[in-house]
Amino acid sequence: MNHTERTQLSRLAKRGSYDTAVIYPILDEGLVCHVSYQINGQPFIIPIAYCRIADTLYLHGSVGSHFMRQLAMGIDVCLAVTLLDGLVLAHSAFNHSVNYRSVVVFGKSQEVTEEAERWRILERVVEHLIPGRWTDSRQPNVSELKKTMLIAVPIEEASAKIRLGGVGEEPEEDRELPYWAGVIPLSVQVGTPQQAPQQHGVVPVPAYVKHYKR
Amino acid sequence: MNHTERTQLSRLAKRGSYDTAVIYPILDEGLVCHVSYQINGQPFIIPIAYCRIADTLYLHGSVGSHFMRQLAMGIDVCLAVTLLDGLVLAHSAFNHSVNYRSVVVFGKSQEVTEEAERWRILERVVEHLIPGRWTDSRQPNVSELKKTMLIAVPIEEASAKIRLGGVGEEPEEDRELPYWAGVIPLSVQVGTPQQAPQQHGVVPVPAYVKHYKR
Repeated sequence: MNHTERTQLSRLAKRGSYDTAVIYPILDEGLVCHVSYQINGQPFIIPIAYCRIADTLYLHGSVGSHFMRQLAMGIDVCLAVTLLDGLVLAHSAFNHSVNYRSVVVFGKSQEVTEEAERWRILERVVEHLIPGRWTDSRQPNVSELKKTMLIAVPIEEASAKIRLGGVGEEPEEDRELPYWAGVIPLSVQVGTPQQAPQQHGVVPVPAYVKHYKR
Repeated sequence: MNHTERTQLSRLAKRGSYDTAVIYPILDEGLVCHVSYQINGQPFIIPIAYCRIADTLYLHGSVGSHFMRQLAMGIDVCLAVTLLDGLVLAHSAFNHSVNYRSVVVFGKSQEVTEEAERWRILERVVEHLIPGRWTDSRQPNVSELKKTMLIAVPIEEASAKIRLGGVGEEPEEDRELPYWAGVIPLSVQVGTPQQAPQQHGVVPVPAYVKHYKR
């Protein structure tokens, strides 16, 4: 993977990585990415579900979506996946921080039209969000396939930035101040699955739903 | 607030809103926003903490940050705040969805230099992340203030897009399929606060930390 000025971290470079062994697990844990692009100098941003296969990210959407049609034309995009792990409360307001794992990806979008590849991506999109679900749901029919656009973003460059752990170094005089210091951990809370009222008959909650976690 | 082609929703417009009574609570609940901008046609994206005061979003960062210095020059930006509320499992893969509340904001960045305004923003940035913390931490000193850049993004245009509720309409034949259908709720899980080991003496966990939620 390349590493040019685009992905060079200007601040706190010790928190950065260009290693796919660091980057890919973050991409695989996120549920939603944000896509940045520009049209005639005007920046835009869209949150969207995604998945990764090897060195490519995939987005799916409606063929009727303005955003998807712009991506299908082949444009430069920049995607971010950000996972929040905690709030870091130092004695001073200045030294407060956030624990996070984030990845930024640069690439050019392109539409995927080859049928076998489209199936492979559709399966992966579902499995990325809910592992185990693809074979336990009705797969797309011809009409649904026609309505679905798939976009590939081969990863040209990517970087991760990570902040973990507790309160950083503080001046001795701060540590004596009577303010609580420490970390409030944050993660994704999964609630009790709620069966659809229109469900016909009794279908037991599958294990991949009951034990869903991220 | 304006509403032009930039914020016109092309798809599922029934999920959209241009009402500040819908938009502002989403902006106030999010912890991190994503900022999209472009330099010479190359899109970039950065995740960052933020806060809102009236019709303006504020970002803070280091004066040494390349990103902050670009924003200080006054550029067009597009910001997104996205809250994930659940995964929606329909009988068909095609009808799967995600429950979310998202806001996209358009505006031009500008540096904030006036001292009283800077104090007001710093307080709000901390209070946005951790309500109750500002007066229970050491406030910035002259050296820290010098290292901190504050950027305002007056909201020129904004739109919200929201998907709530259960599985949408499905063909009758799908509803008879033997797959579980329903919603897996998602929210922000707050773990047990972890006191910093370098904390001097015993400081009880304050209520705003013990009962932190989002």
